[in-house]
Order: sequence, then C-alpha cells, then structure tokens
Amino acid sequence: MTVRTEPAQHAGMRASNLALVLGEVARTSPVSRAQVAARTGLTKSSVSGLVSDLIDAGLIQESAPAATERGRPATALDLAPGGIAGLGLEINVDYLAAMVTDLTGVPRYHHVLRRDNRGREVDEVIADLIDLARTAARSAASQRLPLSGACVAVPGLTVEGAVVRTPNLGWARVDLADAVGEGAGLDVELENEANLAALGEMWFGGHDHDGAPLRDFVHVSGEIGIGGGIVIGGEVFRGAHAGAGELGHVVVAPDGPRCGCGGHGCLERMAGQQEILARAQMATMADLTRACEAGDQAALDAVAGAGRHLGVALASVITLLDPTAIVLGGAFATLAPWLTGATSASIGHHTGAVEPPRLLVSGLGSDAAVRGAAGTVVRGVIADPAAHLARQAAQRP
Amino acid sequence: MTVRTEPAQHAGMRASNLALVLGEVARTSPVSRAQVAARTGLTKSSVSGLVSDLIDAGLIQESAPAATERGRPATALDLAPGGIAGLGLEINVDYLAAMVTDLTGVPRYHHVLRRDNRGREVDEVIADLIDLARTAARSAASQRLPLSGACVAVPGLTVEGAVVRTPNLGWARVDLADAVGEGAGLDVELENEANLAALGEMWFGGHDHDGAPLRDFVHVSGEIGIGGGIVIGGEVFRGAHAGAGELGHVVVAPDGPRCGCGGHGCLERMAGQQEILARAQMATMADLTRACEAGDQAALDAVAGAGRHLGVALASVITLLDPTAIVLGGAFATLAPWLTGATSASIGHHTGAVEPPRLLVSGLGSDAAVRGAAGTVVRGVIADPAAHLARQAAQRP
Repeated sequence: MTVRTEPAQHAGMRASNLALVLGEVARTSPVSRAQVAARTGLTKSSVSGLVSDLIDAGLIQESAPAATERGRPATALDLAPGGIAGLGLEINVDYLAAMVTDLTGVPRYHHVLRRDNRGREVDEVIADLIDLARTAARSAASQRLPLSGACVAVPGLTVEGAVVRTPNLGWARVDLADAVGEGAGLDVELENEANLAALGEMWFGGHDHDGAPLRDFVHVSGEIGIGGGIVIGGEVFRGAHAGAGELGHVVVAPDGPRCGCGGHGCLERMAGQQEILARAQMATMADLTRACEAGDQAALDAVAGAGRHLGVALASVITLLDPTAIVLGGAFATLAPWLTGATSASIGHHTGAVEPPRLLVSGLGSDAAVRGAAGTVVRGVIADPAAHLARQAAQRP
Repeated sequence: MTVRTEPAQHAGMRASNLALVLGEVARTSPVSRAQVAARTGLTKSSVSGLVSDLIDAGLIQESAPAATERGRPATALDLAPGGIAGLGLEINVDYLAAMVTDLTGVPRYHHVLRRDNRGREVDEVIADLIDLARTAARSAASQRLPLSGACVAVPGLTVEGAVVRTPNLGWARVDLADAVGEGAGLDVELENEANLAALGEMWFGGHDHDGAPLRDFVHVSGEIGIGGGIVIGGEVFRGAHAGAGELGHVVVAPDGPRCGCGGHGCLERMAGQQEILARAQMATMADLTRACEAGDQAALDAVAGAGRHLGVALASVITLLDPTAIVLGGAFATLAPWLTGATSASIGHHTGAVEPPRLLVSGLGSDAAVRGAAGTVVRGVIADPAAHLARQAAQRP
C-alpha cells in the first residue's frame, strides 16, 4: 500500500483524495475537517465534500467535538466502527480459525476449531473452513456489519490466490481463494500466515520504545511450523518470488537431520513444537507449559535448547537485516518465560559486539495471523474507499 | 535515490526536471529531444531549454543523428564523458585503491597500493590514502576531467562520514570523510565496501537472464573479511542502523570458534582468506590459486571446505531474502572454479525443495568496490544536476 502525502493532480483524483482523507481520519482521529485539510493540503471545501461522501458510505461518523488549534470546539470525525468489517480466516496445522474485525480493527467475532489437519483430504479441510466462514458471516450480519471480503492465512507459500506449497500440510497447487470465495460468497485473498502475523503485530500489537508502531522488525511465529515475517518500513518484505522470511528454514545445525522442507538442520527441525515435545517427552504444548511452570527439568531443558537454536537463527537475521526489534509470537510467546534467557544468551554469543535489537514478546498469542488477515481486508478498504463506494452503488436496487 | 516518473509541479520544479532529462539521457542514450519529451511527459520546448542548460554545463553532448520513430534522423543526445568525473577510494585490510571514472562510468585512472594495513597507525593509512587521492586528482586534471567529489569504500560500518567500526582493521570513531576531504580538497562521502561492491556489480557487472541489470540480489565480497551487499529493487538495503548485509557474520558453525567480531562460528571465521590459507598451508592467495590450478589436494580441500561453509550461509540468505541471484566477488570470484561446486551442493543440501537463485561469478574481481565508489559520485551528479550547476556557477569568476 502506497501512502499518498500530497493531493493527486490527475485522473483518479477523487479516488486518491478519498483515500487521503479516510487515511488521515484512520491515522489521527478524532480530527476536525479543518485539520484534515491542513494535513492533506486539500482545500476545506474539497475536504467537506469528500467527508460527506464518506459519511454517506458509512465509513466516517461525526462524534464529540475536538479542540481545534485555537481552542474552539469543532465537530470531530472518527472512523465508523460498523461501516464495514473484514473476515480473517486461518488454516493451520492443528486448527482452523475465523475472526471478524470492524473498521477500527476491533474483533467482533472469533472462533477457533482445534483439529489436526495433517493427512486430511484437502476438500474436507476447505469444507470446514467454509462452514467457519459462513458462521462468522452470520454473526457479522446479526451485528449489522457488512463484510467487505475475506483473507485466508496459510502456513506456506501462496501466489495469486493459489496455495503453492505448505510443507507441514503437504498441500500443493490448491486454488483456495476461488474455492472459499464460492463457498462463502465473498471476495477472498490469500497470504502467508507468518506475514499476516507480522502485520497483526504491527497494527494491533507492540510498540517501539518511543511509543510509535513497529515498522522495521522481524516477527517469529512459533506454531507447529516456525514462520517469520520481515517488515521493512511498515511493509512486508516478500523477496523476488514471495518466498522471503522463511525463518524456520534458516540453518542452525549444518550437520543436522533432514527437515520436512528437504533441507538439513533447519531451525524448525531443531526447535519446532514437535522437537521440543519429543525432547521433553510430553504430548501437548499445554502439558509442556504446565511442566515448565512446575519446574520439570526435562521440560525446561527442552525449551532452553530450542531457545539456543532460535538464538542462532536470530543472530543470522540480525547480521543480515539489522532490524529494530524481534517479536516472538505464537508458542514462543507462551514459552517466553523459559525460552528468552537462552535465546538472548545465544544471540549474544553469536553476534558479539553488535548492539542487539529489542527482543519483544507478542501479546497477541496465536491470534496474530487471523487478526492480521481480518485487518488486511479492513486496511484494503481504508486504502481504496472509492472501490468500496463503487461496489455499494452497484448493490443498490 | 528516488526516480521521478512524472514532471514535478511545485517548488524545485526546474531541479527535478533537469534530473528527469539527464536521467533519461543516461538511461537510454543515444536519444533525441523528442524522445526525451515523450518519455518524461515534459513539453518539447521545456526539454529543449533543459537540454541547453545541460549542454552548457558540459553534462550532455550532441552526437551522431539517431533514428526517430518515423525514421527521419534527429540530433542525438549522449552523456558527455568528460563532463565530470568521480573519484573512488578504497581502504581495505591489505591494500588501498583509487579509481577515477568519467560521467559514463568508464575508468580513466586506477591505482592499487598493496600494503597490509593491520596494526598501522590510522593517521599513516589516511596520509597514504590522501597521497593516492592527490595523484588521482592530478591524473584527472591532466585529462581535463573535473572531479565532482570522492567516495571512500571502508571495510566496516560508517555513519555520517565517520567510521564507526572496522573489525579487521580495529578502527573505531574515525572522522575519515573530514580528514580525507581536507587533505585532498574534495567533498568526500563514506560507504561500506560491500555495499559499494554490490552497486559496482549492478552498474558495471553482470546481468539478469533477460539481459536487464540485476536489481534484487546479494553480492558476496570475499577479501580478508567477507562482506555482503543486499540490493532490493535496485537500492542497497541498509537496515535500521546501517548494519545490514553482514554476510561474513552469519552463523555457519554454531559451536565454532570465536570470530574477530566477538561472535562465534561466523562465516568469515570459517571461510575467510586467513582460514583457507591456514588449512591449505599456503602464504598468499596467489600461491593458493597456483596450487589449485596444479591440482594440489590440500589446496582443493581447503577451498571446497570454504565453499561448503559459504553454502550454509547462502542457504540462510536464500531462505530469508529470496533473491533472484547471488553474485560471488573478490577472492571468491578468483577461486570460483574450485569453490562453486561445493557451494551449490551445500545450498542444495540446506534448502531442499526451494528453487535456488542463480549463482553468478563477478567479472569485476577486487575492483568492484572502488568502481562502485567512483560510480556513486557520478550517479550523485546524474541524480541532482541542479546542485552541480549551482556549484559551477559559484566557481565562475
């Protein structure tokens, strides 16, 4: 998404200016029409007209007066929470999830269906996901939230609405966007779950030490697989073929065993949930967490060992990317009390004199990706309200 | 550098338009005034006036007629090779270098002073570099090439004209830009040598398989240290604190020995020149190359061992950054015949199913960084000719 910082002068001017105004309201509300004009460089009369259109479309609402620079009250503008909503869906190795967020990013519906999806027929999993999507859509309708579309978080590589590969599910060449779109009656896009978790963290999670949102960071999502999302300047970095950020397959044990990806000694092979549970001789992550809380030495050793491997991978990430922060999410956030000491020590051992970035623990837990997915839909409307207005107009009788 | 793709409408319009016209000539010459107008969106009369100013400034010249789209000949515009020149300087562990390139990027002077700079006083090394710079400047003057400035390639981290750290030279907090600028009477900027080598490769080196310049790639410079330059979308990626791309300190042996950087098991510690020479029991790289050519098994084993470690680091680079190509430069280019087999096999072993990017060998050898440094000065004038015109005007009596 490109943020415009000055009024557009050419074709598409109205569309650009609608986005400019709605973006300013989203970023700094509550805000007056005069403040929007001053910050965007548009005239006050242009802003008034554009704001009227956005109010009619249900995307902006007038609320309590805000103080102006001269201290006189002016009518304040805010995003209208119920203007539109986004549906986030997630396919992961051991669960499916759905979340609806409103225009302000607040979750209005959330459901997680725990079920091991390995070895299941692809069509069965998709049917379950469509059921979840329909239930979520009914909830949105009952709350009078018009769903603008859906985004599905996938634990693998996606290109143009298709799943190219998901190492831990064994899916390849699945036209998922079309299948879910037809089943749920919505426009559907796909994105890698680790990238969405990183976006979820940026939009709804931690902040930089000056209180600003994180904009240059690496998010590590520890689920059954270990994913990474690289955010540079507020945007996900995807690389030349959409394959960037695969932190789980950074080499941490060059002479190590074969990984599910076909490589050897990958972080995921050495520090993924399966490996930690096997070393701790536990069956579930809940068991492991309880054992760590109880001070069980085998459990603590297994988690610390994973933390050391994670530190090796992060040392290489720091060396190559020089981020301001690293955010641990998913299972690594749950295990943080027994993990981060070993991780920090390992980063220090392997990076030497370099000042390490901040090591943060996500507060979003396993919901980061599905929140990022729902947020992607909502942000899409904020970035291009003209397209939304055109759809609304087409749907009127 | 931001490339403008449409005429600027506000303050700074003339400066922007001069850059637009000169950039178009640099990119596509020989080119006619009408073609420049069509491609930039400027009017023909604007282009004529701007071209006149650039011809007066000595940056553009008229040359042999070029065919227009209708087949009639029109006067062609080219960069004027002698319009300005850039001075590239390089401080490395075992040499100093100077290069002058003209406005078209062609080298017009090149000198390398081989000397081990480890353990020498910083002031002595700087005095040698200033001598080199003065000699180069005299050569430029004798060729009637006006030097626009200098850029120094440094094997370490630089921030705002100061060397922050150079692990292999032990320098810290050296105000190098000011010292060289005063000594040589030139405007001087600093940049990491690995980043400049990557730029040198992009501007003067290899091409993508479709003949276009490389724009998303990682350049590995194997000197005494091992540097990396990450280029994304044609720009060097520097990270949050200018420390990105330090490929030499990616972890390839988690339990390995301490590196000069303070970390452990870094690529540079396991596959740098010193390590290769020690394993081959050779004194110099020239000896090693001769031994490889003669089929000496110890030499071949040492190089292949380095190649395997390099492959581990590159597997992590591929996994994290998904580049279109990896370019081996410096000593790795010299050793390529005996190195790349082991490197490719190691990349394959550690990445599995991922399609690896192309592994290219630089044709620029050890000159990539100093060429990139000289090119940086020249590209700076092409990106902002108005500043150059203003300096010229100020220097007139």
